[in-house]
Amino acid sequence: MAQSIRIGLIGCGVVGTGILRLLRDHAGSIESRLGAPLDIRRIVVRDASSARDEVVPRNLLSTDAQALLDDSEIDIVVEVMGGVSRAGELVRAALERGKHVVTANKALLAEQGDELVTLAEARSVDLYFEAAVAGGIPIIRVLREALASDQVVALRGIVNGTSNYILSRMQSEGSSFEDALREAQAAGYAEADPTLDVNGGDACHKLAILATLAFGARVQPTDVPTEGIESITAGDIEFAKRFGFVIKPLAVARQVLGASSPEQHSTKLDLRVHPALVPQDSVLASIPGAINAVHIEGAMLGPCVLSGPGAGALPTAMSVVSDIVDVGRNLLIGAHGRVPSRAFRGDRLKTIPIQDAGDHRSRFYLRTMVRDEPGVLAAIANVLGKNHVSIEQMFQDGSDTPVAVVMLTHEARERDVTAALKQIDALANVVSAAQAIRVEH
Amino acid sequence: MAQSIRIGLIGCGVVGTGILRLLRDHAGSIESRLGAPLDIRRIVVRDASSARDEVVPRNLLSTDAQALLDDSEIDIVVEVMGGVSRAGELVRAALERGKHVVTANKALLAEQGDELVTLAEARSVDLYFEAAVAGGIPIIRVLREALASDQVVALRGIVNGTSNYILSRMQSEGSSFEDALREAQAAGYAEADPTLDVNGGDACHKLAILATLAFGARVQPTDVPTEGIESITAGDIEFAKRFGFVIKPLAVARQVLGASSPEQHSTKLDLRVHPALVPQDSVLASIPGAINAVHIEGAMLGPCVLSGPGAGALPTAMSVVSDIVDVGRNLLIGAHGRVPSRAFRGDRLKTIPIQDAGDHRSRFYLRTMVRDEPGVLAAIANVLGKNHVSIEQMFQDGSDTPVAVVMLTHEARERDVTAALKQIDALANVVSAAQAIRVEH
Repeated sequence: MAQSIRIGLIGCGVVGTGILRLLRDHAGSIESRLGAPLDIRRIVVRDASSARDEVVPRNLLSTDAQALLDDSEIDIVVEVMGGVSRAGELVRAALERGKHVVTANKALLAEQGDELVTLAEARSVDLYFEAAVAGGIPIIRVLREALASDQVVALRGIVNGTSNYILSRMQSEGSSFEDALREAQAAGYAEADPTLDVNGGDACHKLAILATLAFGARVQPTDVPTEGIESITAGDIEFAKRFGFVIKPLAVARQVLGASSPEQHSTKLDLRVHPALVPQDSVLASIPGAINAVHIEGAMLGPCVLSGPGAGALPTAMSVVSDIVDVGRNLLIGAHGRVPSRAFRGDRLKTIPIQDAGDHRSRFYLRTMVRDEPGVLAAIANVLGKNHVSIEQMFQDGSDTPVAVVMLTHEARERDVTAALKQIDALANVVSAAQAIRVEH
Repeated sequence: MAQSIRIGLIGCGVVGTGILRLLRDHAGSIESRLGAPLDIRRIVVRDASSARDEVVPRNLLSTDAQALLDDSEIDIVVEVMGGVSRAGELVRAALERGKHVVTANKALLAEQGDELVTLAEARSVDLYFEAAVAGGIPIIRVLREALASDQVVALRGIVNGTSNYILSRMQSEGSSFEDALREAQAAGYAEADPTLDVNGGDACHKLAILATLAFGARVQPTDVPTEGIESITAGDIEFAKRFGFVIKPLAVARQVLGASSPEQHSTKLDLRVHPALVPQDSVLASIPGAINAVHIEGAMLGPCVLSGPGAGALPTAMSVVSDIVDVGRNLLIGAHGRVPSRAFRGDRLKTIPIQDAGDHRSRFYLRTMVRDEPGVLAAIANVLGKNHVSIEQMFQDGSDTPVAVVMLTHEARERDVTAALKQIDALANVVSAAQAIRVEH
C-alpha cells in the first residue's frame, strides 16, 4: 500500500461529522481512485467531552489545536470550524508550517483569501476550498480547471439555499416573507439567526470568491452592491408572475464595457447580489427549494448550468473530501501548486474597476402603494418620463385604498430609476416608499 | 517565460479549426492560468491544399502523420480527425512514443479505450478525453475529480443533441419524426447520415465511457441495450403529454441489487439507451433543442445536474483545450498519471455483471392500433393481466378505424411486458405492432 495521506481535522460539527461518515463509508472506493488511504490523525474541537455521532473516533478528539499544528506527520489540515478570526489564525499557522489546507469557510476566504492564498503560494502548499461555494456543486473546480481555456462572460447564480427556499415557498404557497422564513427554520433550511442568509451577506461572500476565479481579478465583498430578500412581499411575487417572471435570489458577475468611461473599451465588472425577476421559462426560475445553481456564459462554451445541493452535511463533506483527494494526488506525486488557487497565477491577477451601481441598465419591476385619487397615475408616469424611465406595462391592483400601482419598465439606467423613485415617494397620494426589483435575463 | 507546451494536431475540420481559433483568441488568458504558452507545431490533414479558415496557419499543414509522430519536440498529440481505425493507429503510435494524447473521439474510446488507457498507463503518459462526451459539459472531469470522494448511484443523461433536437421539435411543433429530422439537418443539428445519432449508437458509445468512469467498471458498448428514437410518432408525444410526461432520448446507468441472483446483495449495472417518458416537471424534461444534460445521483451528494452545449466547434474545442491545459500542468510539474484516465486505477477496475434487460422494472407507456370492435380492449387488458402487467391509466383515441389504445402501466418487469406485447400483436383486431416506451423517474 502506498503512503497514507494524514489529515488533521479542525471542527467536528455537522460538516466535520459528515466528513468522518464519508471517510468511513467510502474508504475503499477513495483508495481505488487515489492509490492511498486517507487517514484522520487528530480532531480538534471546542469541547472534547460533548456527545458525538458514532462515526467520530473519540480517541482522536482534543481541544489542543497547537498539538495538531505541531504534528509533523500531518500533511493536510481540514478547517470546518467556521468563523473568521480564530479559523483564520489556525489556517495561517497551518500554511506557515508547510501544511496543505482544505477549508469550507466562505467568510474566511472572502475576507482574507488574498492574504491566505499569497501565503500558500509562498510556502508552496495547496489551499483548496470547493465546499465554500454552493456546497456539493463543483463550481470552483469547473471555473478553475474545466473552463481553463475559456473566458467567462457572465455568471449568474442562486448560491444561497435559504433565500431560494423562502422565495420558492412564497411563490408556491403565497406565504409572507415572515411565514416562509419560519417554515425554512422549521425545515432546517434556515438558522436561528438567518441574517446573513436573507440580507445577501452570505451570497456576497460567495460571489466575491466566484468573481475572482471567473475573471482573474481581485474582488472583495465590499465591491459587491448587496440587497437581501426581506422586502419582497407576497404581492410582489404575484405581480411578477402576471408579467411572466419568478423572483429569485441572484448573485451576478459580468464583464461589461465601461461605456461611460472616457476610454470607450475599458472593461468593468458588474457585480450584484439582489432578488431579481427572471423569466418563468428560464433555467434559474426552475431551481426549487434549497437547491443552488450557477449559470455560466463562456465566450467559447456558451451557456452552461450546474445545479445541486448547495448545503447539507454530506454534500458539503463530499466537496471537502474530493479536495482532500486532489491535494492527496499532489502529495503522492509532488505536484503542489499545480493549479493556482484563484485559477490565475498570482502575478497575473488583475484589478478590474467595478461598475458603479448607478450605471447598471436593466428593466425594472416597480410597485408603489397609492390612494386611488384622480391624477395619481399621471403624476407617477410623469416623474418616470422626466427621468428617462419608460413604462412597458402597468396595472393597478386592489379596490380598497391604498391600491398597488405595478409597473414593468423598459431598460433604464439604475441611477435614473433611483432618482425617479425618490420623487415618486414625495408625491401626494403615494402612501409608501416604492419597491424596485431588477429584471435579469 | 516558462517552456512552451508543444502540440501536434491531427485533423483540422470543424473542431480542429475551433481549437486554432480558441488558441489564437485566448492565448493570453490561458498563459495567465497555465504559466506557459500553448504552441501548435504541426497540423496533419488529409488534403493540405484545400481551402481553410484564416485562423489555420497554412505553413504548419501537412499530410505526413509520421513526421508528427517522429517529432521529438511535440509533447501532446491532439486527435480530432474522427473515425476509429486510422485514428486508433495514430493515437496508439503517439502513446507508444511517450507522447500525451488529448482526443474528442468517443467511438474510438468506447471501442478501444481499454487498450489505449492500458498503453498510456504503461508508458506513463496522459490520455484525456473530456470532449468525447457531451461536448462542452465537463462531465468527465466531474466524474473523475469532483466526485472522487463519492459513489455514483445513478446517472441519466441526454447526451445526443440531434435526438433531443428532433424530439423537442416533435414536442413543440407536433412534427413527424421525418419532418423533425429534416429540420434538424437544415439547422445543422443532424448530419447528412444521421443513423448513429437517431438509432442510439452515439449515445451508447458515450454511456459506455460514462459508466466506466462512474462505477469503475469495464463497460463495452455491446453491454448497453440500445434503442433509437425512429419509432416515436407525433401521436406518442401527444399521448405522453396527456399522462403528464415528455419523451426524451436518455442514456441511463444505475447500480442495482441483482435481486434475481442467488446471492441477494450482488450489485449489477442497469445500462440502457432509449427514448423514455420523463415527468413534465423534471429537470431532464426541460432540456431544450440540441442541449445536453447529465443528471447524477451521488450517494453523498444527492442529485446534481450539468447542462450545456453537447456539440459545436467552439464548445468542443473548449473542452479539448482545457484538457491540453491539464496535461500541460502535468508536463510543467512532472505529474503524469496524476488522475487515472478511467477515474479508478487500472488494477482496481471491476467487472460488474450487467442486468439482463428483461429484469428491468419500470412503468411503461404502451400504444397499439386496433379496429374499434367490441371486446378488443377486454382482450388486451386480459393479456396484460395474465402477464402480471397491471394498467394504471388507459384511453382510446380517434374515431376512424384504426383507433389508438394508449396505456400507462404500473411498474412491471420488462420481460413480462415483452411477452404481453407479443400476444397482443397476435390478437384479432390489433392492426399494428404495439409501441412500448419506458418511463424513467
